[in-house]
Amino acid sequence: MSGSSYGNIFRITTWGESHGKGIGVVVDGCPAGLSLCEADIQQYLDRRKPGQSKFTTQRNEADSVQILSGTFEGKTTGTPISMVVLNTNQRSHDYSEIASYYRPGHADYCFDEKYGFRDYRGGGRSSGRETIGRTAGGAVAARLLKEMGITFLTYSRSIGPVTIEESRFDANAIWDNKLYMPDAAAAEEASSYLEDCMKNRNSCGGVIECQVKGLPVGLGDPVFEKLDANLAKAILSIGAVKGFEIGDGFAAAHSTGLTNNDAFFMKDGHIEKKTNHSGGTLGGMSDGSTLIFRAAVKPTPSIASPQETVNQSGEDIEISIKGRHDPIIVPRAVVVVESMAAITILDALLSNMTARLDRVVDFYKKEN
Amino acid sequence: MSGSSYGNIFRITTWGESHGKGIGVVVDGCPAGLSLCEADIQQYLDRRKPGQSKFTTQRNEADSVQILSGTFEGKTTGTPISMVVLNTNQRSHDYSEIASYYRPGHADYCFDEKYGFRDYRGGGRSSGRETIGRTAGGAVAARLLKEMGITFLTYSRSIGPVTIEESRFDANAIWDNKLYMPDAAAAEEASSYLEDCMKNRNSCGGVIECQVKGLPVGLGDPVFEKLDANLAKAILSIGAVKGFEIGDGFAAAHSTGLTNNDAFFMKDGHIEKKTNHSGGTLGGMSDGSTLIFRAAVKPTPSIASPQETVNQSGEDIEISIKGRHDPIIVPRAVVVVESMAAITILDALLSNMTARLDRVVDFYKKEN
Amino acid sequence: MSGSSYGNIFRITTWGESHGKGIGVVVDGCPAGLSLCEADIQQYLDRRKPGQSKFTTQRNEADSVQILSGTFEGKTTGTPISMVVLNTNQRSHDYSEIASYYRPGHADYCFDEKYGFRDYRGGGRSSGRETIGRTAGGAVAARLLKEMGITFLTYSRSIGPVTIEESRFDANAIWDNKLYMPDAAAAEEASSYLEDCMKNRNSCGGVIECQVKGLPVGLGDPVFEKLDANLAKAILSIGAVKGFEIGDGFAAAHSTGLTNNDAFFMKDGHIEKKTNHSGGTLGGMSDGSTLIFRAAVKPTPSIASPQETVNQSGEDIEISIKGRHDPIIVPRAVVVVESMAAITILDALLSNMTARLDRVVDFYKKEN
Amino acid sequence: MSGSSYGNIFRITTWGESHGKGIGVVVDGCPAGLSLCEADIQQYLDRRKPGQSKFTTQRNEADSVQILSGTFEGKTTGTPISMVVLNTNQRSHDYSEIASYYRPGHADYCFDEKYGFRDYRGGGRSSGRETIGRTAGGAVAARLLKEMGITFLTYSRSIGPVTIEESRFDANAIWDNKLYMPDAAAAEEASSYLEDCMKNRNSCGGVIECQVKGLPVGLGDPVFEKLDANLAKAILSIGAVKGFEIGDGFAAAHSTGLTNNDAFFMKDGHIEKKTNHSGGTLGGMSDGSTLIFRAAVKPTPSIASPQETVNQSGEDIEISIKGRHDPIIVPRAVVVVESMAAITILDALLSNMTARLDRVVDFYKKEN
Repeated sequence: MSGSSYGNIFRITTWGESHGKGIGVVVDGCPAGLSLCEADIQQYLDRRKPGQSKFTTQRNEADSVQILSGTFEGKTTGTPISMVVLNTNQRSHDYSEIASYYRPGHADYCFDEKYGFRDYRGGGRSSGRETIGRTAGGAVAARLLKEMGITFLTYSRSIGPVTIEESRFDANAIWDNKLYMPDAAAAEEASSYLEDCMKNRNSCGGVIECQVKGLPVGLGDPVFEKLDANLAKAILSIGAVKGFEIGDGFAAAHSTGLTNNDAFFMKDGHIEKKTNHSGGTLGGMSDGSTLIFRAAVKPTPSIASPQETVNQSGEDIEISIKGRHDPIIVPRAVVVVESMAAITILDALLSNMTARLDRVVDFYKKEN
Repeated sequence: MSGSSYGNIFRITTWGESHGKGIGVVVDGCPAGLSLCEADIQQYLDRRKPGQSKFTTQRNEADSVQILSGTFEGKTTGTPISMVVLNTNQRSHDYSEIASYYRPGHADYCFDEKYGFRDYRGGGRSSGRETIGRTAGGAVAARLLKEMGITFLTYSRSIGPVTIEESRFDANAIWDNKLYMPDAAAAEEASSYLEDCMKNRNSCGGVIECQVKGLPVGLGDPVFEKLDANLAKAILSIGAVKGFEIGDGFAAAHSTGLTNNDAFFMKDGHIEKKTNHSGGTLGGMSDGSTLIFRAAVKPTPSIASPQETVNQSGEDIEISIKGRHDPIIVPRAVVVVESMAAITILDALLSNMTARLDRVVDFYKKEN
Repeated sequence: MSGSSYGNIFRITTWGESHGKGIGVVVDGCPAGLSLCEADIQQYLDRRKPGQSKFTTQRNEADSVQILSGTFEGKTTGTPISMVVLNTNQRSHDYSEIASYYRPGHADYCFDEKYGFRDYRGGGRSSGRETIGRTAGGAVAARLLKEMGITFLTYSRSIGPVTIEESRFDANAIWDNKLYMPDAAAAEEASSYLEDCMKNRNSCGGVIECQVKGLPVGLGDPVFEKLDANLAKAILSIGAVKGFEIGDGFAAAHSTGLTNNDAFFMKDGHIEKKTNHSGGTLGGMSDGSTLIFRAAVKPTPSIASPQETVNQSGEDIEISIKGRHDPIIVPRAVVVVESMAAITILDALLSNMTARLDRVVDFYKKEN
Repeated sequence: MSGSSYGNIFRITTWGESHGKGIGVVVDGCPAGLSLCEADIQQYLDRRKPGQSKFTTQRNEADSVQILSGTFEGKTTGTPISMVVLNTNQRSHDYSEIASYYRPGHADYCFDEKYGFRDYRGGGRSSGRETIGRTAGGAVAARLLKEMGITFLTYSRSIGPVTIEESRFDANAIWDNKLYMPDAAAAEEASSYLEDCMKNRNSCGGVIECQVKGLPVGLGDPVFEKLDANLAKAILSIGAVKGFEIGDGFAAAHSTGLTNNDAFFMKDGHIEKKTNHSGGTLGGMSDGSTLIFRAAVKPTPSIASPQETVNQSGEDIEISIKGRHDPIIVPRAVVVVESMAAITILDALLSNMTARLDRVVDFYKKEN
């Protein structure tokens, strides 16, 4: 099945493996007339590129993006935007060992069963480098949404056992620490924790939170194409994500109707909500308040500590994974979460334009 | 956007409103040759029909299903299976009140903004009755999967503050209590809690858990069509679901690689895992162990207690919602979760058949 | 594969067999606010219903449509519109003979090979009655397009060897003869030819032509989603259609650039074309002139004359097909062609709304 | 709308403009294990590359393809195959003239209306170079189909007024003349005609015919996903194609049931047809005989003779198009038609694997 495309109207198709010639994405369905240059994309890619801190792989990749099509004189033309990042630092070391066994927590075994064999170099298609394509596509979506007043705030909410304190929440702090946490004290504590992790040849996970402001009411559709349902798919499609919740999420399951319902009230002639337990959607449609959701990210499965597993000859063995592995992927995954959210929201926004006949009629009257 | 279809190869398209003529589904892409009769579907619908206990709406609907097409001499023919449940107990009471305001926690406001107006009778398309179509479609999928040795165990894990105890887990108990809990003691405790809820004109939420056994390795695709990503969408597309997690889910975010990785080992010549923190998928593909995931369900938003809201004239008002409302929807939603999972898994299973050239070649050689 | 849906944003899903309980369609993605009642649909269905003339099957079906969902107080709500026509005149005669062999020119043999068996009663899913769902869906699309000033003129261009004369073209005549020909003299000649056909227990084919006026410029997309490409699929998906051409079509293949190019010129401040060899599209997009295309329809394969074939036991046999068969399906297929065109065009029109960023921005500015 | 993808299970996504950095395609859903190297692709691309004869543009492009992803050790891995052809010979001449007016027979005007502006250099996305991506994708599909015994024979049937004679049909001749005609005498006659065309600064069209042998029975689905319907879309999506017919096509419209029906008979224990008026499909499914269809290609719209048109300032003007234009595109489009057919057929073949439950069950039994 052709599973490398995401989105309906605004659609990305990604390609590439960790140690192939490059990684890329084709963005199709982008409205014509958006100012777009390589720097717009690079800014997003830089948020996920390796080597930003001691907690990220030291693979030395500039991850420089080229736009190969779809723009003319600095603007999108409505035709597909092809973007590519060439792989320049694939180490040519011997992969014969990793080729022979199945790493715990990785997709190696499933790949072999599904496809009969696998590109084992650096994880192949299941490498974190696969997210380069998503991020480049998300950069285009976010760029367009910004033109419409829709903005994102995405950050690490938890790193291992360390969670930010609401009282210390500081959006500016996100850019001041390598962990993208909106709480300087928590970031410091998390750094210490990560150093211990590395010493112990262990790894950890965390929680990413994303807030989206400026959404019009009514994005998303009432049944299968609920905005939150599509966000859930988008987020779970990122490797290592094991959970998704919107608004109060799992806490809502233990709440009551009286507490969990958000009361509507009038403010300056507009309808608003007194609280936001719903997280910005009702019945699958955006409700005009801030969209807020969380992604649970599992610990990096590649660890240097000894682990039990089996090899392709069907023998029980013990292994220690070598190589350049992040003790945590959360900080680099922040921009990936934002990218997938941006694509999902833009797609819903474009889709929503056909919901009402009066607006369709008006659109074409105006045009002609 | 045409948002009432779900699935790619095996696809359901649902229709119908709470107080329209009926609710239905068209199941397309079902392989030919499956034994199927109305009783197979009815058995699933009966698990979600109203009036099963004092905790469910007393709307008196038999919810009897008719198969209108797609079967011949008791077997599916490969053509679309149309199924319908006629609405017979829509109360003809006056809806002018509910029409005039926006119920907190409901989609009323979003519908009006998105579509310009809404069918306000009983929630219209956003009614829980919408899930009849999903359940009928899920019954077909589950029926087919059973032929392939794939089985489901779905139940209420939490009702409000009451969660089942692993040590008391008893699959048979699920069918012995009206709350579909696999723990008789917890079910009793939860019943008391629900009675209090009703007395207080309040409502509560809960957590549904689903286990799937018998999956071959390799279902799901490595990037956007991950099995868990599609399950997340399927489950979040059910009204009132606010969170999804697979395996250890959010707990994995606070774990470490050493703990969270599942070691592979050989057992009777097959590869198995010593633990199942992953919940049955690796890299988005089924890994041969039990698939296990959870859905967080919010409290029923329709409560009899007074609530603040606004009306369509833009005035702040106080309301009390009348009518027949479940204090909790979790027990009736159990079969809906199972249905959406069955459709998702069957779709992945059919999609997976084209993954390997040798198997494709073999398939056609054999056929001719 | 789920092959019973057509369209992306405006999408129909059809179901039903000739001798099952009924035939139906679910229309999803219809913008909210369209006035729609059963009479709007019935008017279209009446153009294809049996018993209109001596040249159509005498099966006595009223083909009365019911709308089961998707409208409220006479308007579409944006939710799926389910429509059904119950089968009331399935003859209960013995089908054991037809079940045993493969009718030439029919899909019987392919069905058995593909699905393992078939619903042989009256052609099952491959019956002409399958087009009821398309026609009901097309009626909705055409109703909406009319609101936007887009209108259709569809008619029989050829019946067997008889083709209309351009010089006698009279749009009003279409409704004055049972063959839907815009040329009274040709209709009379064709009637005589058909009577001969019937006497000879033979059948014939013909050509249907469709003109669409009022299209804005730019519908359709430049590469795979060309407007003419989608029309070609829509039209070839109608049973018995063997060819499609737009504008000069096959004649253009024998023309030259100097003749075939349509010169642009200014008229009243607008761009127009001096000729319309292109048939209303350039580069896959509507060009503002009348869209004109043709469908080649093969002769009805069910004929009473003796024919050679094989039976399911693998024996060569001779058969004569009994029953109520049209000597030509062209007149009844006219409205089916129009319906498929309407759905295709509406889908392109809705899709086109997201082509330009300035219009997207403007749409949302206005809305809020 | 994201209109640059084609196919469901086996899907291509193309990108690139005539004078951008390159042209490419991402092939997704290709089964793992297919031997594939750049030479396999290049062989196809060479059949459409410029400069093959005096009748093709003299733009000097090697059109060398690179595979950037999706293969490992010479075999496809099941992940997306990204292929690119860099543009190396874009002439840097001044496009200000062509930018200012609308060429007759081209998409310039429609682009401006739809997207607000256009990449006017060499036709931008509507250039014939867009077909490079299709051809590279088609090469992969054809390569795989060959492994299954499915082969293509595609050729020019007519060039302008010159049509091949059935009695002189010689498949080997196709490769012996630059016009890809299976009739040496016709090819010679056509060459003379083309030389006259060029002298007259005119152009012409033609008809391409494609035969496919070795198809199993039952490919394609009975309603909207008919094999012939999808072929029609695939072929009409190629720029300059104005008509499609399968089997007897438009001639069938003037035939009778007695003549047009193909009688079945037994041959060596298999069912065959005595004739093939249907062109290899019945009811939208392959019927086991040779698939045969035709595409009508219009004359190249770019001609050196003076033409009337309008400019962007809304003035009537006269123009003469300069530059390197083929007097006919038919010979180079032959491989594009074959490519689109291969993709369509492979997609139908993969889709067909899920049609029967017994085969699905058997597939998974065998696998485990």
